[in-house]
Amino acid sequence: KMLRRVLCTMLFVGALPSLAEVSQGHISVVLLGATGDLAKKYLWQGLFQLYMDQVSSGHSFTFHGAALTALEPGQRLMFDVLKKLACPPDESPNRCAVLKDQFLKLSQYHQLKTAENYTVLNREIETLLRQERLKEAGRIFYFSVPPFVYTEIARHINSSCRPAPGAWLRVVLEKPFGHDLESAQQLAAELSSFFREEEMYRVDHYLGKQAVAHILPFRDQNRQFLDPIWNQHHVERVEIVLKETVDAKGRTSFYEQYGVIRDVLQNHLTEALMFLTMELPANMSRAEEVLQRKLEAFQSLRGLEKTSAVLGQYQAYASQVQEELQKAQDYISTTPTFAGVLIHSDSLRWEGVPFLLTSGKALDERVGYVRVLFKNRAYCTQRETLRDAGHSHCKAKQIIFYIGHGTLNTPAVLVSKNLFRPVMPEGSWREAVGHSDVQIFGQPLSDYYMYSPVKERDAYSVLISNIYHGRKDFFITTENLLASWAFWTPLLDSISHQTPRLYPGGVENQHLLDLEMVSGEVAFTVAEPVELLNPNRQMPSDYKTIQSKFRQSPLVSAWSEDLISQLASDIEKTASRTVAHSGQFHLALSGGSSPVVLFQRLARHHYAFPWKHTHIWLVDERCVPLTDSESNFFNLHKHLLQSVRVPYFNIHPMPVHLNQRLCVEEDRGTELYAKEIMALVANASFDLVLLGVGTDGHTASLFPQSEIGLEGAQTVVLTESPVKPHQRMSFSLPLINKARQVFVLVLGKGKHEITTLVSRVGHEPRKWPVSGVSPSSGQLVWYVDYEALLG
Amino acid sequence: KMLRRVLCTMLFVGALPSLAEVSQGHISVVLLGATGDLAKKYLWQGLFQLYMDQVSSGHSFTFHGAALTALEPGQRLMFDVLKKLACPPDESPNRCAVLKDQFLKLSQYHQLKTAENYTVLNREIETLLRQERLKEAGRIFYFSVPPFVYTEIARHINSSCRPAPGAWLRVVLEKPFGHDLESAQQLAAELSSFFREEEMYRVDHYLGKQAVAHILPFRDQNRQFLDPIWNQHHVERVEIVLKETVDAKGRTSFYEQYGVIRDVLQNHLTEALMFLTMELPANMSRAEEVLQRKLEAFQSLRGLEKTSAVLGQYQAYASQVQEELQKAQDYISTTPTFAGVLIHSDSLRWEGVPFLLTSGKALDERVGYVRVLFKNRAYCTQRETLRDAGHSHCKAKQIIFYIGHGTLNTPAVLVSKNLFRPVMPEGSWREAVGHSDVQIFGQPLSDYYMYSPVKERDAYSVLISNIYHGRKDFFITTENLLASWAFWTPLLDSISHQTPRLYPGGVENQHLLDLEMVSGEVAFTVAEPVELLNPNRQMPSDYKTIQSKFRQSPLVSAWSEDLISQLASDIEKTASRTVAHSGQFHLALSGGSSPVVLFQRLARHHYAFPWKHTHIWLVDERCVPLTDSESNFFNLHKHLLQSVRVPYFNIHPMPVHLNQRLCVEEDRGTELYAKEIMALVANASFDLVLLGVGTDGHTASLFPQSEIGLEGAQTVVLTESPVKPHQRMSFSLPLINKARQVFVLVLGKGKHEITTLVSRVGHEPRKWPVSGVSPSSGQLVWYVDYEALLG
Repeated sequence: KMLRRVLCTMLFVGALPSLAEVSQGHISVVLLGATGDLAKKYLWQGLFQLYMDQVSSGHSFTFHGAALTALEPGQRLMFDVLKKLACPPDESPNRCAVLKDQFLKLSQYHQLKTAENYTVLNREIETLLRQERLKEAGRIFYFSVPPFVYTEIARHINSSCRPAPGAWLRVVLEKPFGHDLESAQQLAAELSSFFREEEMYRVDHYLGKQAVAHILPFRDQNRQFLDPIWNQHHVERVEIVLKETVDAKGRTSFYEQYGVIRDVLQNHLTEALMFLTMELPANMSRAEEVLQRKLEAFQSLRGLEKTSAVLGQYQAYASQVQEELQKAQDYISTTPTFAGVLIHSDSLRWEGVPFLLTSGKALDERVGYVRVLFKNRAYCTQRETLRDAGHSHCKAKQIIFYIGHGTLNTPAVLVSKNLFRPVMPEGSWREAVGHSDVQIFGQPLSDYYMYSPVKERDAYSVLISNIYHGRKDFFITTENLLASWAFWTPLLDSISHQTPRLYPGGVENQHLLDLEMVSGEVAFTVAEPVELLNPNRQMPSDYKTIQSKFRQSPLVSAWSEDLISQLASDIEKTASRTVAHSGQFHLALSGGSSPVVLFQRLARHHYAFPWKHTHIWLVDERCVPLTDSESNFFNLHKHLLQSVRVPYFNIHPMPVHLNQRLCVEEDRGTELYAKEIMALVANASFDLVLLGVGTDGHTASLFPQSEIGLEGAQTVVLTESPVKPHQRMSFSLPLINKARQVFVLVLGKGKHEITTLVSRVGHEPRKWPVSGVSPSSGQLVWYVDYEALLG
Repeated sequence: KMLRRVLCTMLFVGALPSLAEVSQGHISVVLLGATGDLAKKYLWQGLFQLYMDQVSSGHSFTFHGAALTALEPGQRLMFDVLKKLACPPDESPNRCAVLKDQFLKLSQYHQLKTAENYTVLNREIETLLRQERLKEAGRIFYFSVPPFVYTEIARHINSSCRPAPGAWLRVVLEKPFGHDLESAQQLAAELSSFFREEEMYRVDHYLGKQAVAHILPFRDQNRQFLDPIWNQHHVERVEIVLKETVDAKGRTSFYEQYGVIRDVLQNHLTEALMFLTMELPANMSRAEEVLQRKLEAFQSLRGLEKTSAVLGQYQAYASQVQEELQKAQDYISTTPTFAGVLIHSDSLRWEGVPFLLTSGKALDERVGYVRVLFKNRAYCTQRETLRDAGHSHCKAKQIIFYIGHGTLNTPAVLVSKNLFRPVMPEGSWREAVGHSDVQIFGQPLSDYYMYSPVKERDAYSVLISNIYHGRKDFFITTENLLASWAFWTPLLDSISHQTPRLYPGGVENQHLLDLEMVSGEVAFTVAEPVELLNPNRQMPSDYKTIQSKFRQSPLVSAWSEDLISQLASDIEKTASRTVAHSGQFHLALSGGSSPVVLFQRLARHHYAFPWKHTHIWLVDERCVPLTDSESNFFNLHKHLLQSVRVPYFNIHPMPVHLNQRLCVEEDRGTELYAKEIMALVANASFDLVLLGVGTDGHTASLFPQSEIGLEGAQTVVLTESPVKPHQRMSFSLPLINKARQVFVLVLGKGKHEITTLVSRVGHEPRKWPVSGVSPSSGQLVWYVDYEALLG
């Protein structure tokens, strides 16, 4: 009855749909948590906006607020909210008043607590549809409730409130969606037992911020300008920033469990990052293509390490937590309220470009932006004082998606005038004139083309409109969500016990939270003013490297980090000297876990290493395909070869996989490798062989209790390991002992026992193969870290 | 007699050497061209400075001015110069007056014209040595004469003026040392028939400029700060700049032959570049190590192309040349008076860092500097207005070797305060305080630590001192010289007919000479105001790509550049689609010259190419080792693979070199490759095969008049080419025709005839193998450029 009355009113107003149009379908919107904070603040307003925008779309609507509260008080609470709905400034007050009146009449409160409540709701909707002879288009269930009740509500909706066949169901979910990969997977699995993927709309309200929502359209509409410069060769860095002045006071019960990374970086800032880095699909209007490209962008992110992040906590946080959560005086929270995280993508487009995501509470200003700073490749021949102030190519070049607040206090898109004049959609963005005395990102506003939205729209009203239009690319798919958690969880785990730097808050922070990005790591620029943690711990660099003897040969010992750095330098020195002398350097490397850190160090810190003239050989290999993650070569490739430029021709993996089978004697892999060595390495005497030691005293893949490879003419042999994979290929001891230099690397407490033992035994290779390492005319050096040496 | 008198005076003065010390040896300095401009302006003063510095070194000296002028007038001319020698401000006037008097007495004029003159000079020196009972330490011959007389003088010195056995000979040569590689080689060969390498001191007076001479010591003494940042990861760009306000007026007869690149860039600026980029030897005092490292730095420079340079010529130059060289009114000079050249080093340390060398006459100011700008990797969390002005890490970070003139008007070393406080040798450099209102390189002087020399010394006096000390690392060795010419000559050849951009000169130049460095190329920032050259030439991009049919298959045709760009895009599209669908992309590439441009384009412009999931196969190969420059794989590696990141495991060169021999049937290379294909490529059906066409109609390595590979079950075959190397390995036609997509690329006028022929013939693979290409269920597309298609 109510609806009929409304429809009459609508017809009366004139600009409203005819009944025929209405017959295109009816949409029921159910807002769960209708009297909660979010609903009060944004959602009802967003739904009202949807109604105003779509009243003549051909769809009819009813709005159902729902909560646990009983009917009567709930109704009162809800209508108190609805009465306060605002008319947007660009709407005629008359039309708005009429529409608001209609909206109120189309809205109804329901108590949704028991299974029966859901059945009743469903029945009411069905009755209405039948009475009004409306075809059902679909139902939207908006979950504005805590996630722990998601599953229960989902079960009820699935069993009792699905729409008629042919109509769609859209359930809208609000974060948090778990707090790590496992919990997110669990929640996703539960939800997927009730809803199909295409039915779920996970909201990240950041994607509704006008400046964020415009990143992809901007990239698409400005392809002609961006295509040549949107890559590692032109982009200097990217900053994705959300600074807040408020702190967590009053919200610590939530905040203490989440912290700034889960609260802001994992979702909002990561999504903005994806919009920047993803490849554009050919057709932007196909949501699944957009989502697919976004997922690919996740896959090319380089894994985060502890050194990828700096963390802070405002000073008052501890006492706020103690008070609000009733913790003891000595309770220490390690929850970060500030984080700067450096992210790299391994895609060819973005390799090497630093993406800095940073956010924090209790900072000096409230502002959000995404800033793409381009490399400045211009050289101005004229001296500085003579340069034209306006469009000089020697000025900074940047594109900024200004999310809001801060100096501008409006969403905006800014493009440096010396870049290009962007194409912007005329209906929705208009050029704004900046005051030249306002400086922003190091330049006066007059240096930018600046655009701001014709209508400023609240994020929720943008998102509600996107739900209505079924634009799934504005929401977080399950795959997307899990990819994000898979990316963030290792970092969250690794920093869970790290004490954040304390900061006073506000302008008092001064330089305390300034960051620097160096060689893929991020660090605070100024040293910690007070040593908070482990003040007594001596740093490795406080120790000198010990130089001594081990088994009559030189020993280098230090903490492992220093040891690796010394070893890497020594290898480079040997390499440079050898290349200077003979034009090439033959380096044979062992497998195992110890060399991985060495490989990484060589890849990242040794720019003068003569890779171009280095030949890489394997000391030993497991009989698995080279592409197997157990393969020594695979790990060498992953941690070293793919980052340096050794010519293809100089890389010599062991031929363990011939004729599509593994280490079959008759394929003569050992002979083949021996021949290759003979052909390229003078006298089969390697310039440097790097070995390790196993806890059983094995070295290369020469294991105790076997004669194979200990003596004789065979240089490369097949052996048996006591552990899987059993089959191995290995240099023989005689081949190792022909080398000009042999370095043995031993790391870690786990090697202390064997190290002690080996230091005492004589030449007993049958028992401890490593004791047979003794270059006949070359040099042997032991690199043993303190933990292995001293236990 | 004269000498004896001098020695007495010296003893009298007191601070002078005893006779015993004098017996350490006598040095005769012969200045050829003693009355010329350079001698007048710098060399005599430098020799006087040497005398003042070394008078108590234990060596005794005589100075012999020489020229073509007869004795009496020559003497007069020379002593007029000597009388005007200045006392340096830091020398006590008394001591200087005494020393100047001595210097005049030790100096003598000789006419050196005929062979006999040289014999006489030699006899006089010998007589003096005998009379004074002096042991000879060495002789210095300073060639301040035009290079065309070098050879003759060298012959005379070699035959008549060599010092006594045990004493050294040093000949000092002034540029130009040739005007290209060939002429430099010729001059070097001639000189080497008279002098040993260690006897020759080729002067580049820039190496005597105090700021330039301090680059290496600075790098050495500040290793602790520079080691982590002196590399591609931290250096944003380097500018090496020498700007002049003067023009070439009065010197056009020299200048017209040389131009700015030969005059300034090939020598001065290149040497400064080497000091910056070379690896530091462990021991800086060993000249040969320094020189060796410098030579290595040359070897890692990437070759220059036409697009590496922009050229200018000041407007008045043409008329000056016409006037001074009496050229006709319509004479057009293409000699550049301004150049900006972008240089890259392929060393791991510097890969990707742009080095800009720029110099010109008639510019807005006189200044020289070497500027190293570091990447700014800091992020300041505090908003701009709150940042401390002094040491903020968000400011620019740079190191500048300021050679002289310009704003500072003194040599200086500047280091941004937010970098580090440099170690400077206290005796020779002192901290200077900059006025904070002076802006330099975008920052107030107060932002830098600034050092200037304690004594400003003229470049020649620095060099003469280095000659005396035998510091060969301050001079240009023959190898160094030829390496430099080998580097510059290809550019000089390629631009010899290029018309430089005209510029008005001085401040009028405005933005006309501003440059931009983009993807390894340099270009003027503002477009040429008037089209001077080939105004009627239609650019390729004026044409649309033609789409049509060729042999019943789709044809794409355009000018070659557009065609390649289209083909590269099409390959990427196919790759992305295929990877999205099946997770991998199997691409088989042909050898030959046409694909090289394609490879380069793919390497440089296709960032989104899914290389990680691409397998690279060879369609055909020459039976040569893979490391042979004739190998198809070698060229594929050089132009594509070394620049992109295809995993090692996905690269499949043809096994033409098994068991250390080439394409021997019993090694079963063809079977091996066929097996590998079977194992990895589903149904042996490649996703894309790229072919070319030979002028004889061959494709892959399937040649006319042979049955091999045209049909049958064998997928990979050995074939015979009519041209060397004769032996080939190739895909068979049946294998090619199983592909899902085949692209045939045909480029150039040379292919016009065969293109026309092939367009008409039917299926006759025996005569024209390419006519047999006809994928059974895949697609064939022809990419033929206009020259091949239309002739």
